[in-house]
Formats: sequence, C-alpha cells, structure tokens
Amino acid sequence: MEGTIRCSANYVPLTLISFLQRSAIVYGDRASIVYGNVSYTWRQTLQRCTKLASAIFQLGVSRGDVVAALAPNIPAVYELHFGVPMSGAILSTLNTRHDSSMISLLLKHSEAKILFVDYQFLHIAKGAIDIMFKTNTNLPLLVLILECADNASHSHGITLNKASSGILEYEDLIAKGDLQFEVRKPNDEWDPISLNYTSGTTSNPKGVIYSHRGAYLNALAAVLLNEMRSLPVCLWCVPMFHCNGWCLTWGVAAQGGTNVCQRSVTAKGIFDNISRHKVTHMGGAPIVLNIIVNSPSHVKKPLPSKVAVMTGGATPPPEILFKMEELGFSVTHSYGLTETYGPGTICVWKPEWDILPQDAQAKIKSRQGVNHLCIDELDIKDPVTMKSVPADAKTIGEVMFRGNTVMNGYLKDLKATEEAFEGGWFCSGDLGVKHPDGYIELMDRSKDIIISGGENISTMELEAVIFSHPAVLDAAVVGRPDDYWGETPCAFVKLKEGCSATEQEIIQFCLNHLPRYMAPRTVVFEDLPKTSTGKTQKNVLKEKAKAMGSLSKNTSRL
Amino acid sequence: MEGTIRCSANYVPLTLISFLQRSAIVYGDRASIVYGNVSYTWRQTLQRCTKLASAIFQLGVSRGDVVAALAPNIPAVYELHFGVPMSGAILSTLNTRHDSSMISLLLKHSEAKILFVDYQFLHIAKGAIDIMFKTNTNLPLLVLILECADNASHSHGITLNKASSGILEYEDLIAKGDLQFEVRKPNDEWDPISLNYTSGTTSNPKGVIYSHRGAYLNALAAVLLNEMRSLPVCLWCVPMFHCNGWCLTWGVAAQGGTNVCQRSVTAKGIFDNISRHKVTHMGGAPIVLNIIVNSPSHVKKPLPSKVAVMTGGATPPPEILFKMEELGFSVTHSYGLTETYGPGTICVWKPEWDILPQDAQAKIKSRQGVNHLCIDELDIKDPVTMKSVPADAKTIGEVMFRGNTVMNGYLKDLKATEEAFEGGWFCSGDLGVKHPDGYIELMDRSKDIIISGGENISTMELEAVIFSHPAVLDAAVVGRPDDYWGETPCAFVKLKEGCSATEQEIIQFCLNHLPRYMAPRTVVFEDLPKTSTGKTQKNVLKEKAKAMGSLSKNTSRL
Repeated sequence: MEGTIRCSANYVPLTLISFLQRSAIVYGDRASIVYGNVSYTWRQTLQRCTKLASAIFQLGVSRGDVVAALAPNIPAVYELHFGVPMSGAILSTLNTRHDSSMISLLLKHSEAKILFVDYQFLHIAKGAIDIMFKTNTNLPLLVLILECADNASHSHGITLNKASSGILEYEDLIAKGDLQFEVRKPNDEWDPISLNYTSGTTSNPKGVIYSHRGAYLNALAAVLLNEMRSLPVCLWCVPMFHCNGWCLTWGVAAQGGTNVCQRSVTAKGIFDNISRHKVTHMGGAPIVLNIIVNSPSHVKKPLPSKVAVMTGGATPPPEILFKMEELGFSVTHSYGLTETYGPGTICVWKPEWDILPQDAQAKIKSRQGVNHLCIDELDIKDPVTMKSVPADAKTIGEVMFRGNTVMNGYLKDLKATEEAFEGGWFCSGDLGVKHPDGYIELMDRSKDIIISGGENISTMELEAVIFSHPAVLDAAVVGRPDDYWGETPCAFVKLKEGCSATEQEIIQFCLNHLPRYMAPRTVVFEDLPKTSTGKTQKNVLKEKAKAMGSLSKNTSRL
Repeated sequence: MEGTIRCSANYVPLTLISFLQRSAIVYGDRASIVYGNVSYTWRQTLQRCTKLASAIFQLGVSRGDVVAALAPNIPAVYELHFGVPMSGAILSTLNTRHDSSMISLLLKHSEAKILFVDYQFLHIAKGAIDIMFKTNTNLPLLVLILECADNASHSHGITLNKASSGILEYEDLIAKGDLQFEVRKPNDEWDPISLNYTSGTTSNPKGVIYSHRGAYLNALAAVLLNEMRSLPVCLWCVPMFHCNGWCLTWGVAAQGGTNVCQRSVTAKGIFDNISRHKVTHMGGAPIVLNIIVNSPSHVKKPLPSKVAVMTGGATPPPEILFKMEELGFSVTHSYGLTETYGPGTICVWKPEWDILPQDAQAKIKSRQGVNHLCIDELDIKDPVTMKSVPADAKTIGEVMFRGNTVMNGYLKDLKATEEAFEGGWFCSGDLGVKHPDGYIELMDRSKDIIISGGENISTMELEAVIFSHPAVLDAAVVGRPDDYWGETPCAFVKLKEGCSATEQEIIQFCLNHLPRYMAPRTVVFEDLPKTSTGKTQKNVLKEKAKAMGSLSKNTSRL
C-alpha cells in the first residue's frame, strides 16, 4: 500500500528477550526467582542473564551454536532460558533421567559447545564426556553449577577445587560477565531459540527445533490458557527441560511473575512452597497430582487461595481430579507434544458444566479440548484422504495441527520433518475423535491401537476403565498377537499397596463398563517400565505380550 | 538449521480472523454482542461475519480495497471488524463527528468501494456523496444500517423504501450472504487490515495503516494490559472508530468476551448496562470518567463488582480518579497514538503504591508509564542526537516507540511516513521526561510547549494545576506572543456551573503551586473548541492568543 515503510520502527523480530528487558523495568524490584533461601528480583535477573550471555559469547560460542544444560528446576536453568538466546545461541535442555550414554548421543547430535551441568548430575555428564572422548567426538566445555550459596549446606559435600580441576563454574562465569554486553537479538524471528529432544519411546530421540517466533507466541498463549494476570506466582513442577517448561519459563517473565524453583518434586516441597510463597499457578503431569493427592495428612497444608493447576502428558483419572478439587486446586487439562511447544490444546471449561454431576464433569475434563489461541487450526483427519472426520464422537482420525507454535522441524532429519508435515499439517501420530461441540478426545497413539476381529480398540479408553478400579495404581494395555482375533487386549496392571485383585476381577470389571470385545483377555500384574519423562514404555510391553504367544488355538479362522 | 521446513503446518500469517473462528467453537453458545434487546452468540457472529464477507466480495470488492463505515458503537460496526478483513478488504471506520465535507475528503483519499452507514448519519453520508458526485470522484456504494429489529422502535421513524431507493441494506446483505464463503485470510501478515484517520488538530487527517500482524499482537497486548481473563464483559465507551476501539474489538473475540454495545455514551446507559450485564471492563477518555462521576445520584447504581476502566487520550485529573475509585471503578491510565494502534504505554500499578496518600497515588497514576508487552522499546530521546535523556524526571525529550504495533505508515504520504520514522524510531511528537523508575511522563506536544524568556513551560503541567482549582471544569494553555518574553502562558478556562473565579484568583492559585515564570499572565473564560475526538483545538486557541498581541511593551529586550 502506497506510503508504507518497513523499518526498525515498526518491524522487530519477535523475541522473548524483550519480555525480560521490560520486566526489569516494570517489575524491577519484584521477585523473579525464589529457591530455598535464595531470591532474585527481575532487575537482578536481567543483569545476571546479560552477564551470562556475555560469558557464553566470550567462551567462543557463535550465533546458531547449541549450548546444553543438564539440571533440575534450579535458578540457573531459568537464567539459561534467557542468557543463552541473549548470546545468540540455541538452548538445549537435557532430560536429567538420561544416562551418560544417551547424553553423549544428544551432545554429539547437537554439537553442543558448552554443557552446563548441575553438581547432582556431574557424574552423568562426566560419563558422557568420557564416551565422547573415546569416540573422538568434539567435546563441549563443561560448566559446573554448584548449589546456590545460601542453600550450600545441601550440596552434599561436593566442593570444587577450581585451580586444580580447570573446570568452569557457573557463578564465576556470571561474576566475570560484562553488564554492558550488547544483547544479540535474532536477525530473523524464524531463527532457532531452543532444541528439545523427544523422549523417544520407540526410536532415537529427535531434536525438535523451536523458533523465537513460535516461543514468543506460545509464551503468550501459555499465559492466556493459564488465565494468568500480571504478577503470578508459579511453582515449578513441570521440568524446565520439558518443552522449556511448556514455554512458561518465558511466559512468567512476560507477566512479571515469581518462579518458585525446587530441585525435586515432593509433596512436602509442594505444600510448603505454596503456603510460603502464595503460589497461584503450577503445572505437572498426572503423576504430580498423584503425589499431591496421596501425600500423608501431616504434609498437607491448607492452600492460601485457589491454585490453578495445568496438567498434561496423560489423561488424569477422575478420582484424582475430584480429590485435587477438594484440596482447593483447580485443574485444567491440556494436551500437546514436544513438536507443539508443549500444550497445543486445552479443555476450556464452560461455566454451565459446573452443575453437572462429578462423574460427568470428570468425563468432560478428561477430553483434550480445543486449540489454544496461537494454534491456528486443530483438526482430526483421515491421514490418507486428509478429510476431516465428522464431529460425531465416534469416527477415529489423526490429530493434526497447523500454526506458528508448531516446530521448525527435526534437527538433521529432513526426512522425519517431511513426514511429520505431510499434507501441510503437523501429523501428531495420535488418534482421536471430535465431539459434536468441537472438542477433541484422544483415543490412542496410532501405533498403539489394537485391532481385534476387525474392531478398533482404543487402549486409552480401556486403560481409563481399568484405572477407575479402586485397587489399581497404574495400568497399560497393549495388543497380544492372536491367531484367531488378530490381536486381543492384554493389560499390565500395578496394584496399590495393600490392595489386591485377581485377573478375573479386572476382566469382569471391564465387562461391566465396556462392550465385550474391548475387555482384556489377559491381565499381568507387575511394575510398568517407564521412559525418562515418565511415560509407560509400551514397546517393552508389546514385546512381552508378543512373547506370550496366541491365546486362541489356530484352528478355524473367521 | 538443517532439518527445518517452513510450510503451512508451522507458519501461518498472523491474523485476528482465527480468534473469531476459534471463539465460535470454544465459546459458541456464549453472548458475543448485546445491544438493547438484541444479542448474538459467538457462533452466530462467525456466521454473520462470514456472510457479510461473502456479500462484500460479491459486491466486487477486491483484496486490498478499502471498505468504510460511519456508525456509532452498534453491533454492525463490531461485525465489520471481522467481516471486512475476512473478505480480503481493509476497514476504514470514520469518525461520526465529521461533517459531510470531511467525510467526502476521507472517502476520496481512501478510494473506499463501499460505505456502510448507520441511519443516524445517513444525511452526513448523503452530503458527502453529493460533494463527491459534483467533483466527479468515484462514488462508494452505500449500505444503510437500520436499527436492529428488536430495537427498531428507537429508529426515529426512518424507513427504507428499498424498491424505489435502490439503496442496499445491511441485514439484507447478510441474509443473502453465503455461509460457505471461503474466508480470505491475508497472504502476508504485513498486509493492511485497517485504515484509521488521525483527528488532524492542525492539518488534514492522515490515514494510518494497520497490519494483520500489528493488530493481532496489539489485540493480545490489549487483553493483557487490561488484565482480562477469558469471558470478560466489555462495555463499549471507546468509539470503535477510534484505533479500532484500541484493538479491543479483536481482543474481546480472542477471550470469548461479551461486547456490550451502546449507541451513545450516557451516565444512565453506563450504569444500566454495567448492572444488567455485569460488566467487568470498559475504557474511555477522561470525558467518560467525568460523565460517570458527575452523573446525578438517581442514575448511579451500585456496581455488581469491581469494573476495570482503561483511560487514555488525556491525563485524568486526580479528583476524578478519587471519585471513580469511590464508586467502585479501578482506573488504569494508558497512553498512545493512532500510530501505535491506540495505547502503547500503560501506567502499570505496583502493589506497594497502595499505601501512599491519595494525592501521591494520583500523581503516580497520571504518569504514562511503561511500554506494553508488544511494544519492543519505549524511550525518551533528544530528537536531534537520538540519545536517550537521563532518567531524572527533568530532562525533556521526545517520546519514541519501536515495535510491531507501530503503524505501517501513512496512506499515500510517504514523506510523512519517512519523517515519522526518522532515525529508525517512531517519533511521537510528544515531549516527556523519564522518571528514575523508568516510567515516562508526558510534558507536552512538541508544538505546544511555551518558551518564555528562554524557559520551557509545559502547558500540560500548567493545565494540571489549573484543573485542580475547585471551580475549573476545563482548561487549556497556549503561548501568547510577547515582545519581551517571546511568549507568555495564556490560559483558556471553562468554569463549573454555578462556580466563579476571577483571572487574578486563577493566576494566584498557579503562583501558589508553581514557579513564578510558569504562571499564566492571561486568563480567558470561555468554552473550549474541541476536535471530533474531543481533544481541545489548541491551534484555534493559539490563533486567539496571537490576535491578542503582546502584553509587554516592546521597549527593552533581555
């Protein structure tokens, strides 16, 4: 249009760095981070992150290099979420449940130039470096994060003889950083800001690339879907290494909130922190809700006010939801993948549902819901024809996303990226249905669904029923090969301590609640194998079920 | 970075159209618009806007054409905020205070293809068309908006003989629209979405171009700076033709809120609507606050709960702020220009200020504050050297902005655009200081400041003092040419009904509160001339002051 100019006055690449710069002015004296006896203000956080960025730059890291971190939810990881991008580099936070071998693979894959490591995980990092050294891989510089000074009594006696070890130390780096460092904002908002490895249940982890643009928009979406006004107080139960804490690392900065950090997630820590810091928001997988609900009564404390909890990663069982609400938490269910920067859908609650019976409420709340504000389109499609399934709550299709908060792609794996974006949509690999009101509900991972006698059986649906059995703590269902039916459902179940149930009781319970063909034919009682992010390793269970062989005799076929 | 792909799965031009599409699902049954006895749901609003878009398209409007509207805050104008962009066209909402001559100029300048006009302003529109016809200008199609059916008794007897007049009617267009119309989202998020003419106190109005990108981001920023959670109820006192209602037209859709429309702003309407619809948010220039505070007691109703009020356009006098708070409103002060999509700064309130005396609170609240989340940088600079002024609350400089919510430019006026963006910043033309805490405070428009005996006198500062005189209702100060001092301050004052004050009393009052050189030498009691947006026309007053001649005799010079 005649008369327009695009220049630095009216076009700035979107970047979260500006959130921190603004909060240092608007919320300068307010607490940015609290952690045990340590606390910082937003003014200090900007200063520390600027010095951190300058130190990373001084260590020879260039624009577009990867800087990795291996640490729990401590202040340093929060600071790295700004300090690394401010140096022009890309942040790769690694899962602390990985072993040295996996860490070495990821460091090699990302070609990380620096690895920031918390003292608690130093042995893992050293193990990884040893492996890399032996295979002649370029080694990252190691920077050790010691326990914050005021909490140092907890640091398990680890001390650092800097002179002799030659190893760099985090606080030293910051102390030597230059406060006048000119922050390196992205030249293009499409530039990567972080690299998040998927948990890799069945294959090698894939490196999911986030952009400044996507992270900026997802941080705003996260603020909105968490119904955060300014000055929230957020308790960190979601690992910051998991989709950058669902992008709330950056979202909290946008709103001038306080980040309550904790090294580990315990019931005592959660209740103590909520009461001490007047927490308003928190998030976590259903396991965190479990910890809260099942905590001993002497640990539970009354909440200072309603605490909003965002849960995701798996569908929370109804019983847990009821108990959480009774304790004063308000739980919202969201769903997403590493590829969608964490939550991409949310089960937006409607006031008219408040009057429904508890069971009906739980059923509604367990749905994955609708796209958040910055996901442009969410749909359930037939992956072959790419046609939308009808909104009949029955027809199963694949969950697909479109929007600016979908990853740039998988690092060094163009083929996987192309597959994921086939048809111009991000194909999640999750199967679901669309309800008449437009809300989606997951049925299964496409690779997990059981086909028995030509009928599709959603393992998630079956698991939800098994979960509702009072004696069941954990459950997973896979297909057991069958000569007659093709597959039959096989349930792996872990019972609650002190509870008992027989195979026949579990099967009968399912028959009472589901069509006959959906009930499991086999029930195995045992601990379930988990991935580093706490997901059940269904591939391991599938192998077990396969080894069992067919239940039916291979006599007559249908 | 190797492995990435940019495609429709992960890159979508930012556009507000997606807010409406999402709200039609998430908030489908909730009220989108209420207006007297008329109300719509978000599902209906999407349907109506889609049909409206198809009708506009069918009328031959192409991508990038301008569609104008001349109407108060009625549902149709809200719908045009989506319907026009959904057709691919650009919305130009015109100020209803303009006369036919100005409207004809603006229609000619924008080359509008359609003019949607409310029945109340039909005579203005017809007058404009007449002028254009006589000057052989291409005429826009006229579409008449009648009063909504259920409110029709108020439509002042205007009826439309469609057959004979050949004029199009709004509801007819919608009725004939195609619900299957494929919405035309922007190809590029930089594409224009709307055209907002400045009020033009001293020159011809300039056509400020907003982009889809800027409007999207500013809508989110507006939601956040208004501290809106989902489902807000917003009472429309800010004209939607004013910076697209400070972008809250789109922001309310993002949050699934309810738009409470009203044809005119009256105390009775405000209190009735607040009580009937449980309004949570509203906005308005200080004149709206005035109307509320000075309303007769039989009109005032207790508020159902705290109502957040965003004010801007001028600094609200402390007395008005106190009285608003007493009535249960919570007032926040923002500042911006048409060029910054409405508010670009906000005086973010800090909890620690709550304990300050009322006077100190009002002084803080009258500051313009800090940039909102989507303005990347706000600064006060010396416009010659482009250096930032010190944050000493004293050194005056020009307020400058940088960010994605700064206009694309002035339509067909590249020279003015270049001047506005000189130095890579948007130069607001407003003068201000920066306080040590980083908050800015306006001092004056650069063209209004008085230089008397070499001293800068801020007319805003002086006006604030005059405003605090108990007898004063309205005041404006301009420079009166002076042979000795260069200029001296000349105050134009309107007294409250039933109050009196002499020139000497006003001067003495100023001397009690300000340095001697700042006090006015002349006080004139009269009604102040206003622009169509309610701003005092200082250029008119300057002419009057000029006509008075010098106070000092031209004998000796300094």
